[in-house]
Amino acid sequence: MTVRAVILAAPLQLPALQTFSDPVLNEGEVLLETIASEICGTDVHLYHGRLAETPYPIIPGHISVGRVRQIKGTVRDVEGELVQEGEIVTFLDVHGTCGKCWYCQIAKASTRCPERHVYGITDSAVDGLLGGWSEQIVLVAGVHIVKLPATVSPELFMAGGCALPTALHALQRAEVSFGDTVVVQGAGPVGLSATILAQLQGAGKVIVVGGPAHRLEIARALGADVTIDIDQHTPVERQQYIRELTGGRGADVTIEATGVPSAVTEGMHLTRDAGTLVVVGQYTDYGTTTINPHLDINKPHLQIRGTWGIDLSHFYRGMRVLARYGDKFPWTSMISHHYTMENVSEALLTAEKQTNIKSLILPNGVI
Amino acid sequence: MTVRAVILAAPLQLPALQTFSDPVLNEGEVLLETIASEICGTDVHLYHGRLAETPYPIIPGHISVGRVRQIKGTVRDVEGELVQEGEIVTFLDVHGTCGKCWYCQIAKASTRCPERHVYGITDSAVDGLLGGWSEQIVLVAGVHIVKLPATVSPELFMAGGCALPTALHALQRAEVSFGDTVVVQGAGPVGLSATILAQLQGAGKVIVVGGPAHRLEIARALGADVTIDIDQHTPVERQQYIRELTGGRGADVTIEATGVPSAVTEGMHLTRDAGTLVVVGQYTDYGTTTINPHLDINKPHLQIRGTWGIDLSHFYRGMRVLARYGDKFPWTSMISHHYTMENVSEALLTAEKQTNIKSLILPNGVI
Amino acid sequence: MTVRAVILAAPLQLPALQTFSDPVLNEGEVLLETIASEICGTDVHLYHGRLAETPYPIIPGHISVGRVRQIKGTVRDVEGELVQEGEIVTFLDVHGTCGKCWYCQIAKASTRCPERHVYGITDSAVDGLLGGWSEQIVLVAGVHIVKLPATVSPELFMAGGCALPTALHALQRAEVSFGDTVVVQGAGPVGLSATILAQLQGAGKVIVVGGPAHRLEIARALGADVTIDIDQHTPVERQQYIRELTGGRGADVTIEATGVPSAVTEGMHLTRDAGTLVVVGQYTDYGTTTINPHLDINKPHLQIRGTWGIDLSHFYRGMRVLARYGDKFPWTSMISHHYTMENVSEALLTAEKQTNIKSLILPNGVI
Amino acid sequence: MTVRAVILAAPLQLPALQTFSDPVLNEGEVLLETIASEICGTDVHLYHGRLAETPYPIIPGHISVGRVRQIKGTVRDVEGELVQEGEIVTFLDVHGTCGKCWYCQIAKASTRCPERHVYGITDSAVDGLLGGWSEQIVLVAGVHIVKLPATVSPELFMAGGCALPTALHALQRAEVSFGDTVVVQGAGPVGLSATILAQLQGAGKVIVVGGPAHRLEIARALGADVTIDIDQHTPVERQQYIRELTGGRGADVTIEATGVPSAVTEGMHLTRDAGTLVVVGQYTDYGTTTINPHLDINKPHLQIRGTWGIDLSHFYRGMRVLARYGDKFPWTSMISHHYTMENVSEALLTAEKQTNIKSLILPNGVI
Repeated sequence: MTVRAVILAAPLQLPALQTFSDPVLNEGEVLLETIASEICGTDVHLYHGRLAETPYPIIPGHISVGRVRQIKGTVRDVEGELVQEGEIVTFLDVHGTCGKCWYCQIAKASTRCPERHVYGITDSAVDGLLGGWSEQIVLVAGVHIVKLPATVSPELFMAGGCALPTALHALQRAEVSFGDTVVVQGAGPVGLSATILAQLQGAGKVIVVGGPAHRLEIARALGADVTIDIDQHTPVERQQYIRELTGGRGADVTIEATGVPSAVTEGMHLTRDAGTLVVVGQYTDYGTTTINPHLDINKPHLQIRGTWGIDLSHFYRGMRVLARYGDKFPWTSMISHHYTMENVSEALLTAEKQTNIKSLILPNGVI
Repeated sequence: MTVRAVILAAPLQLPALQTFSDPVLNEGEVLLETIASEICGTDVHLYHGRLAETPYPIIPGHISVGRVRQIKGTVRDVEGELVQEGEIVTFLDVHGTCGKCWYCQIAKASTRCPERHVYGITDSAVDGLLGGWSEQIVLVAGVHIVKLPATVSPELFMAGGCALPTALHALQRAEVSFGDTVVVQGAGPVGLSATILAQLQGAGKVIVVGGPAHRLEIARALGADVTIDIDQHTPVERQQYIRELTGGRGADVTIEATGVPSAVTEGMHLTRDAGTLVVVGQYTDYGTTTINPHLDINKPHLQIRGTWGIDLSHFYRGMRVLARYGDKFPWTSMISHHYTMENVSEALLTAEKQTNIKSLILPNGVI
Repeated sequence: MTVRAVILAAPLQLPALQTFSDPVLNEGEVLLETIASEICGTDVHLYHGRLAETPYPIIPGHISVGRVRQIKGTVRDVEGELVQEGEIVTFLDVHGTCGKCWYCQIAKASTRCPERHVYGITDSAVDGLLGGWSEQIVLVAGVHIVKLPATVSPELFMAGGCALPTALHALQRAEVSFGDTVVVQGAGPVGLSATILAQLQGAGKVIVVGGPAHRLEIARALGADVTIDIDQHTPVERQQYIRELTGGRGADVTIEATGVPSAVTEGMHLTRDAGTLVVVGQYTDYGTTTINPHLDINKPHLQIRGTWGIDLSHFYRGMRVLARYGDKFPWTSMISHHYTMENVSEALLTAEKQTNIKSLILPNGVI
Repeated sequence: MTVRAVILAAPLQLPALQTFSDPVLNEGEVLLETIASEICGTDVHLYHGRLAETPYPIIPGHISVGRVRQIKGTVRDVEGELVQEGEIVTFLDVHGTCGKCWYCQIAKASTRCPERHVYGITDSAVDGLLGGWSEQIVLVAGVHIVKLPATVSPELFMAGGCALPTALHALQRAEVSFGDTVVVQGAGPVGLSATILAQLQGAGKVIVVGGPAHRLEIARALGADVTIDIDQHTPVERQQYIRELTGGRGADVTIEATGVPSAVTEGMHLTRDAGTLVVVGQYTDYGTTTINPHLDINKPHLQIRGTWGIDLSHFYRGMRVLARYGDKFPWTSMISHHYTMENVSEALLTAEKQTNIKSLILPNGVI
C-alpha cells in the first residue's frame, strides 16, 4: 500500500503530489486517515519562502482532522482517555516542546522553546507524513491529541481551524471586560474568529476594520456590530468614525490581525487612552512602520501585546468553545472553498490572491 | 402637590404608605418620576432588621428606573452628556464615596469607603425621597446617572436589576477563561445573572446547583447546560455528579450565590485543584461553617475571592451587556411578579418566602 | 505681608521673582511654608514651551515639601488624620480629578481625567500660589496631603521627588518577578529611582544603560550591577553585551526612561522574548522612531506598556518606600545641586544642559 | 564500593543507616556526592506517617546540594549549559511531571500533575539513592539541575533550602505592592524566608506573628519590623495590635505559614478589607477551623489563595535571589543545627520538638 501526499519542494515551486510508502508506526504513534486540512496564510508564506529555515520538502497543512486508523501502543488524549481506532480526532500542530528549557519552565512561554516543531511548517517530508495535505498523517509520540466532541463536526472544527486558537490566544492577552468596545483590524480567519470571541467575552460593541466587502458581510453575519471597509475609507476617516462610535475615546481593545505593518500604528490610534492593542497579525516580516512614542504609547498610557503562536491550552479551549457555541454563530460561513489533492495548486494560488476566506483540503475527497 | 412613598419604619414592621411634600431641588439635583423599582433579598433583610445601622425609617428600593421630571442646574451622565427632562435614566444606588480616603485612593476599593451611602438601604427617609418605592426619587448632586440606551426597555433593565452588576462583579473576580466549566451555586437573581454572564465569558459548561424546580427551569432557559436540584440531591451526590461532568476534576470556577454559610465549604469541594471560588452570596451574617484548611484550601491550591458590593463600572458595564445581549437571552423571564405601592406588603411577604424570583414595584402603576 | 515666588511668564523667558500679596485661605485650604521644591525635566520643557496649553504665567515646582503654617477649617491627610500647624507635609501635585467621569470611574485611569490639574504645570499663577518655587504654597481644598514620617527628612523626600512615584508606577506596570534581569534605559532621576525600585522587587540583576559617567557612578552606588555608557558603546554593542549578560536572551523587563524616541525601539531589542518593556520616558513629543512589528513585537511575543502620570497611590507608596528603605540606599546622592530663589535661572540653565542630576530649590533658603 | 544512606523504614520507626551498593548510572543520569541536605517539617511528617501513600522505605532529604561525581551522557542545566564533573549543583526535588496532562497543559498547574514525584518524599529507597540523607544521590534523567553561582555557597543555599522557593511561591501569589504592610504568621523557615522576601517586594512593614522567642529574634535580624509572640499575646491582642499598626485596617497581605488550622481563620481577621491572605502552611491535615463566610470573606472582599508545592521557576528564582541578595540578609542565621548521618535520629527528634529552626544533614561530614 502507498499514501499520496502533496509536497512543497522548494520556495516558489507549485505543490506536487508524491507517493510515500505505507508508514510503519513506532511505539506511541498514531496513524490518521485525513478527513480535512486547510490552507492558510502561512502556507502562502511557505510557498513564497518567507519563513526562515523551512526544511523543504515539506507536506503543508498544520491543522487537520482525521479518523484514527492505527495505534502503536497505548496513547491517551489531553483528558487522559485512551485514543481508539475509528475515533475522529485532531492534534496540536506544535509538538516537541521540551518542557525543560528556560523558556518552557522559567518564562512559561513554551511558544519560544527552541525544540518546538510544527506539523506542516517546521517538519520535513523527509521525516515522514508530518503534514495534513496527505491521505494519512503520522502522529509521533508525544503529539497532543484532542477528540472531536459529538457536537463538533469535522467541518465545524475546520471552520475554526488554526485561526480560532490563534485568535483565542490574542483575546486572552486582550483581557476584554464586559461591555468593552473591541476593534478588530483585519477580516481574514483570525479577525473573523476574533469577532466571534469578542462576543464570548461580553464585548459591548465589535467593530471590524478590513475588506473586501464579501468578508465584511461575513463579519456582520458573525456578529460584528459595525464594519468599516478599508477600500472605502481613509485611515483618518476610520479613526474619526471609531471615535464617533466610542464617545470620542477610541476602542477599549484593538486586535490587529492584518499582516500590514502600518496597521500596528493605526491600531494605536484607534485605541483609547489606557486601552490595549494586541498585535497578532504580523506573522512574517513585511517591513517597518513609524510610531511617535510620546503620542502613541506614553501619553495614551497604552498597553501593546504581541502574541506569538499557541499552546495546547488555546487549542483545547478553542474546541470547548466550538462544542458549546458551535450553533450560536455561523462558523462555517468562514469556509469559502473545498479542494481535493488534485487541485491544491489552484487552492494555493487562490489563497495567494486572498479571494478566498478559508479553504479546506480534503485529501480523501470528502468531509 | 405631594408624593406618595412606602416606608419601613422599623424592623419587622410591615411597609406603609406615607405622603411627602413635593421635593424642592438643590443645585445639581435631579427629580425622577419612578417607572420601576425592585424587591430583592436585601429588602427582606431590611424588613428583618438584619443589616447593621439601618437608619429607619427608610424608603426601600435601591435599583430603580425613572423618567427625568426636573433638573436643577447642569447635570451630566457617566458619558459626560447632559441629562435632559423626559429622558429615561437609572442611577447607581451607591453614592457619596469620597474619592479621597485610603480605601478609595490607595486600595482602589471604593466599596469600602466609609462615606459610602446607598439609596434605599443606608439613606434615611428623614433625608428625603432616597429610595425607589416612591412615586418620585431625588438624585442628590454627585449621584452617577446612566441613560437607558434605545435597546434597553425599563422592563429589561429591571430584569437585570441589582443582581446583574453584582453578578458581573463576581464574574470579573472569577476570571473565567474560554471553555471553563462554571458552577453557579444558587438560582436567585444573582445566580441566574451569573448563569448568563458565564456564557458571555465563553464558559464551556454552566452548571447551576440550586432550587426550587421553577427557578432551575428558568436557569435552563437562560442557558444553563445542567441544573442540579438541591432538594433532590445530597451534597455528596452533587459533588459526585459535578466530578463526573468534569473529568473527575471539579469546576474551573465556582460562583457561590446562596446566602447559606455551608455552601461556601461545599463550593470549595465543587471546585477543581488550582481553580477559583467566588463568594458573593453571603450578604448578611447567617452564621458559620467549618473548613479543613489543608484539604479545602492549601492542598487544592484554591483561590477564594469574596466580592462585596459594586461600583459604577459594574453598573455601567451591566447596562452595556443589556444593550448588546438583551435579545440573546430571555432576561425578563427572571421577573416573576409586578406590584403597585398598594400591595407592597404582599410583595415583601412573598419575597420573604422566596416563592418569587424577582419582583418589581411600579410606584406609578405601569411600566 | 507679601510672598515671593518665581514665575515663568512665557516660553523661553527666564524665570523671574515676583511678589504676591499674602494669601487669604478659603475653607478647606492649607498654607505651606515651602521647605524645598525641585527642578525636573518637566520644568525645562515648560521653559521651552513644549507642553501644550500651559497657562503662563506659572509658578513652577510640582513636587514640594513644606511646613503647615495655616489651616482654614478641618483638613485630613490620606490616612484620615487631622493636618495640624507646624507639621511637615507634602502633597500630590495632581488635583481636581473629578472621580465621576468615564476615565475616573469606568477605565479606572484617573490620569486621563479631563479635570486633572497639576501644581506647577497646569495651574496658573493667576490663580494663586500654586507652585513650589515660592516661599509659600496654597493647597486648595481636595488636594491630597501626606505627612512626612519621622524617618523621612525633607531632603530624603526630595531625593525621591517626582521621579520616585513616576518610577514606582512604571515598576508596577512592569510586574518584575523575583530574580528577573531588569534593564533601565536612562540615568536621570526616573532611571535612578527605577534602579532602586527594581531591587525592591527582587530583581536578580539591574543593568543601567545611560550616561554620562558621573550619573552611572551614582547608578552603581544605588545598586546597579552593571552600567553601560551610551557614549562609549554603540546600540549594537549594548544589545550584544546585554545578551551576554542574560544567557543570550535579553532582559526580562526593560524600563525606558530616556526621552529619546529611538530608545523605545532599542528597548524592544534589549528585551527577551515574552518579556515586558515599560515606556515611561517619552514625556514630550521629540519625534518618531521606526519599528518592525513582526521582529519587534509579534514574533518576540513582547508586552509594551506606556505609563502616563501618577495617582495618589503611587505617591503614597513612594513615601512608604522611603520610610522603610531610606537608610538602605544612598538616595540623597541623586541630589546634585541646591539653589535659592535668587539663582533659579542658573538652576534652570544647568538642568537644560543636563549637567545636574536632581536640583532642589529652597525658597526659604534652608532645608 | 558502597554508599551509606539513612532510611525511614516505616512510620514511627527511627531513621537507620543502611549500606547500598555503588550505583550504576543509566543514560542521562548524574551522580552527586552529597554536601548537605536538610531536615524540615515534612521529614517529621514522614516519620509520623502523616503523608498519604509514602512508599517506605524512603531516604529522606528533598532539597540537597552536592558535587557532581559522575555523568552518563550529556546533561544540561536549566540554562542549557553542560553539567560537568566537579561542579557544585542542586536540583529540583520535584521530577517526573509529565508536561502532557490536563493539569500541566490546560490548568498550567504542574504541581497537580499526577505523575509528579519528589525526591525524599514520594520516591522509594527501593528505586535507588533518591533522597539527600545519603552519601550519594542519583539524579535520574529529566531532573532539573541548577548550578550554584559563585556567590552562593552550599551553606547559603541550604539556608534557603526548601523553605525559600515555597515562600517565594507564596509571595508571588500574594502580589505585594510597594509599601504594603505584610503580616507573616509563623516563624519557621517558610515564615522567616517570607520575612525576607516581603522586603524584596518593597513591603513597607513586615510583622511576624509567631514564636518562640529565639525564632522571633532571628525574624527581627532578618528585617521584621515588629514581632508578636503568640506565647505572650492572645489572638484578640494580636488582632488589636496589628490594627493599631495599620491605621485600624489590618494587613494588606497576610502569609499564613503555621500548620495550625485556626491560624487560617485568624489570618482572615488580621487582613484588611480587600486584602489578600495566602495559605501556605497547611501542608498536612491537622483538622478543621470555623469561619463566618459573611464576616470573614464576603463583606471584607477578601482574597484567599492556597499555595501548594513549587515548580522549577520558584526554585530557580530563589537561587537568583540568593545570588543577588545573599549578603544583604543574615540568611544563615536560620541554620540552627548541623548533623552527620550518625546522629540523624537526634536531628529528627529535635525537629519534632521544634526547638531547632533549620537543621542540616552533612552526609559526608563537612560543608
